This record gives sequence, C-alpha cells and structure tokens, in this order.
Amino acid sequence: MMRPAMAADPTLAQRLLEGDRRALARAITLVENEDPAGYAIVQEIYPHTGRAAVFGLTGPPGVGKSTLIGALTKARRAAGRTVAVLSIDPSSPFTQGAVLGDRIRLTEHFLDPGVFIRSMANRGALGGLSEAALQAALLMDAAGKDDVFLETVGVGQAEVDIIDHADTVVLALMPGSGDSIQALKAGVMEIPDIIVVNKRDHPLTETMVREIRGVLSLAPQRGWRVPIVQTEASRGEGIDELVTKLDEHRAYIEAEGTLSERRRRNLRNEVLALATARLRRRLEEGLEEDEQFARLLDEVVARRTDPATAATALLAKAGTDA
Amino acid sequence: MMRPAMAADPTLAQRLLEGDRRALARAITLVENEDPAGYAIVQEIYPHTGRAAVFGLTGPPGVGKSTLIGALTKARRAAGRTVAVLSIDPSSPFTQGAVLGDRIRLTEHFLDPGVFIRSMANRGALGGLSEAALQAALLMDAAGKDDVFLETVGVGQAEVDIIDHADTVVLALMPGSGDSIQALKAGVMEIPDIIVVNKRDHPLTETMVREIRGVLSLAPQRGWRVPIVQTEASRGEGIDELVTKLDEHRAYIEAEGTLSERRRRNLRNEVLALATARLRRRLEEGLEEDEQFARLLDEVVARRTDPATAATALLAKAGTDA
Repeated sequence: MMRPAMAADPTLAQRLLEGDRRALARAITLVENEDPAGYAIVQEIYPHTGRAAVFGLTGPPGVGKSTLIGALTKARRAAGRTVAVLSIDPSSPFTQGAVLGDRIRLTEHFLDPGVFIRSMANRGALGGLSEAALQAALLMDAAGKDDVFLETVGVGQAEVDIIDHADTVVLALMPGSGDSIQALKAGVMEIPDIIVVNKRDHPLTETMVREIRGVLSLAPQRGWRVPIVQTEASRGEGIDELVTKLDEHRAYIEAEGTLSERRRRNLRNEVLALATARLRRRLEEGLEEDEQFARLLDEVVARRTDPATAATALLAKAGTDA
Repeated sequence: MMRPAMAADPTLAQRLLEGDRRALARAITLVENEDPAGYAIVQEIYPHTGRAAVFGLTGPPGVGKSTLIGALTKARRAAGRTVAVLSIDPSSPFTQGAVLGDRIRLTEHFLDPGVFIRSMANRGALGGLSEAALQAALLMDAAGKDDVFLETVGVGQAEVDIIDHADTVVLALMPGSGDSIQALKAGVMEIPDIIVVNKRDHPLTETMVREIRGVLSLAPQRGWRVPIVQTEASRGEGIDELVTKLDEHRAYIEAEGTLSERRRRNLRNEVLALATARLRRRLEEGLEEDEQFARLLDEVVARRTDPATAATALLAKAGTDA
C-alpha cells in the first residue's frame, strides 16, 4: 500500500520556506517523531533544497567539535551567511551532562535569528536516527540557511556514513587521537576531505600532525589534497584557515563537477537507507507482539531452526519474499 | 518465494560435524560467497551448535589483538581445548601488508590440527560481512571447536555489534587509546564484559588503567564487575589472568542464567539482521541495472521527487509495501 498522500500543513511548509524558525523547529520535530506529516512537509519543500552548502563534522568525543562549530558559526555569520547546525548525538543516559555542556558552548548564537541549532539523540536504531537527520538537513536547507553543519560523535565507519551525506566531510582530531589515526591507517575509516587537529596548544600536536601526514601519504592520491588545519577553537585560532579550506574544497568540487556526482551518490544512498530503515522498522514492529515470531525464536533457541531459515520464514510472513 | 530447499552436500556437512578441517574451510567459503549451499549446510549442522564458548574481541587497530588471540590460543591448547579464530577485517587495500603481518603472528598454530584460523574481509556492506561471520561461527561451533574467537577491528558501535553475538565480549585497548576511552565515556560504545590493556610495558599504562576505572565507575552497576587485565601479549604476560577472567565470566553468565538470555537476544538480533541484510541486498541488486530506478533517481537529483517518496516507490516496486 502506498503511503496515503498526507495533506501537508500548507501554512507550516510555507512558513518554513519563508525562513520562520518556529516552523523549521516544528517540522524537524515531526520528522524526528516519524510523523507522516513530517514527510509530507519534506515532500513539499524538496524542490527548494540543494542550495545550502552541507558540511559534515565528525570525530571522537572530547575533541571539541561543538566549540569548533561555534567558532565556524561565528565566522560564517561575520561573512553574512546564515547557519544551521544539526548535532546527532547517540550518547548514553549517564552522560547527559556532557551533552548539555556541549550545547551551552553554542548559546551565544541562540538569540541570533540567522542561526538555527538543533540536536537529535536516539539510543535506538542508528538507522532511524540517520534517516531523521537527513530529512532535518533538507528542512534546514529549504528554510534558506546558507550553511548546514551536520555533527556526529563517533570513531567508527557508522558515524562517518551519516555525515557522508554532506558535500564536504571534516574529521576533527586532537593530540591523543591515536585510535582514530590507526583506524584511518587501517582503512577502517575512510579518509575525509579535511582534517582538523584541535587543541593545538598541546605539546603533542606536532607528533599528531606528523602521524596524520604519514597516513595521508599512504592513501591513494585523489585530485584533492586533504589539508590538515591546526586550531584552538576555544580561542578562535585557526578558524579563518579552516573556513578558507572549507571554501576551497567547495570551489574544487564545484569546478570538477564532483559536487553533483557526490550529491547523486548521496541521494542514491539516502533513498536506499530510507527504504531499508523502513523495512527493518516494519519487521521489528511486527515482532514485538507477534506470538508466531516468539515461537519461531523458541525454535531457533532450541537449535531446531537455524537463523537463516527463520529469517526466510520471517520475510515470507511479512509478505516480502526474499 | 521461499528459498528452494537446497540439497546440502551430505558428505560435506557430515565431514564438518566429524571435525574435518577442509570441510569446515569449504563450508565457510560457501557462506562467504553467499552460496545457497552454504546456508543449506548451516541449516543441517545447526542442531549441533551451541556447545562452543564464543568470545568476541574488538579494539582499535594496532593494539595487538592478533597477538592476544595467538597467546590465548596457546593457553587454551595447553589446557586441552580446541580453538577456532575468525578475524573480521574490513580494511582497505592499501593496508594488506599489515593484515598479512597480523596473520603471521598466528602461524605457529597453522600446523596444529586443534586450531582453525580464518579471516574474512569485505569492503562492501558490513551487513553482509556480519551475516557471513555469524554463519561461519556456527560452522566452527558445529565442527567441534571448544572455543570460538571472533575478532573485529574497529572503534565504533558497528564493530561492537558484530562481536556482540559472542557470549563474552572483550575490548582490547593500549596506552594511547584515548578515543576509545572517550567513546566508552560518552556512551557511544557499550561497556564490554572484560577490558584488556595490552602493551603494559608502556609508561602510560597506569594512566590508561585509571582512566578506564573512571569510566567504569560512571557506568550503571550490573551484577558483573568488568575486570581490567593488563597484558604484554607478545611475551605471553598476563594471559593466564585473562584466561581466568574469561572462565570467570563464563561461569558467571552460566550460573546467573544470563548466558541463555544473552543467546536468545543474540539469536533474535541475528534473525533480524539476516532478514534486513537480505532485503537490502535485494533492493541494491534490483537497482544496479534497473532503468526505472535510474529515472527515479534522476527525479530525486533534479529535486522533483524527494528521497522518502522515492523510497516508497522503490519498496512498492519491489513488492514490499511499507
């Protein structure tokens, strides 16, 4: 059954397109809650997207990503650009304090109508979170923000996958980020477009930069040379250079035609991710109260039915022959 | 359509159950290649699984996981137990040397008929890799190995998810694993059952152990107290203590009944993961040469159809109304 064409709230979508903050906030909440009205709004505003420059920033917890984004926001505002920030934060309940602390670093922008800040947390499926985040980014774009920053916390490929939907991917590290360097070196994490070493006052900064250079020298050469920018974001140092590199990368992908290639690839992955997430959610929902599945699982636990056969039975039951 | 009941090669499954190494190797290759005959064998041998103790070991690249597994293998063999090792290694082409080096550390066991070592690499979908790895672990179990070690390289939740199918999850770190500590602290990575700090000769070992203790003290208290074991695996130091902790954890989960709970949860996730991976693969395969999808994607790129609507159309086309 096709999703019934929901009547989007015309006022909400219209207000969002006019740049109304509350309309944007409301639409993101609908998307986050997986309310069909949220998708209806995205559907309506989608023709007005594609204008914003979308930047993804990832890196291990504690490197100062929020401070970096705060500093970048200040610089972009000074250049007359409007900014939206989406922090994707799948952290655990016992660190809510830290997360709140991060958000506080952005408070100086809370009263600026040219800046929109939102965080999304979801302990459950990263798939669902990723899905909602991408829809939210489209809403921010349609609301007329010139720059959209997507921020994820993490040190694995899954986190990079989320921000890979950005036009430019920035990896933030700091002296001591040995595990991330090793992950880059081993190819567990893909090489980003720009690497930032924050907290450059640390005595081990030079060592860290040398290690990163070593890793980059091993990576296959592409047209774009990945720059390493040293910052001390809490004092705004190195931010101008970082902004320059963001602009240079954007100019590069626009000139080379890779921006449209990248966006086509990203949109393809997005469609696929949305479809898969929806299928998975439907399967999971079906299982919650399903006695037949409980019995099937009993068979698996008793080692009478193997997991793959159970999966086949599950798919057959869900009406999705595979 | 149900998967046609494949006639499993009775000789191969039978030989595998008798502990024949070549039969085990062949069956794993079938599973890795997603050959239906592989699933047929798993189906046949599944009633004979559930006997092995399954240990998962993860940690950032470079901490010495292979050396640890080599030392553990030696200790388990000395205790008269048979061992299988499955290394899941989604690393990039330019680090094949490093991977080969890792494997070399296990060579002293290559001629021991009581030890079976296998690695799996797949740059593509982690979903597919995870799926094949779990099937391979079942094959190792059925082939009569007493201990099965699953090893993944990584520093994110995705890597932990794979080894989460083990009965006991071990996280290996080393002095300098700051990013992993931060990931544990921020709740980005779940707390494992046992933490190993390898390369304990390093001057910063004490600092690292203190930091881990700090993180563990923040975590919600469960019945099992997560031990921190310091090792120098290259010289076999600390391995006895690690073996003791592995045994203690196993005794604990057996006594508390959490082993069967955990296995039920793992099997549930496995069935779900298999079903989702299969759906996703089917979607992806359908897209490769599909002109209708290419046109749909053109519409998305032209900003005429939004990604969620395209996903709905895709699912409808695949006959999986969602």
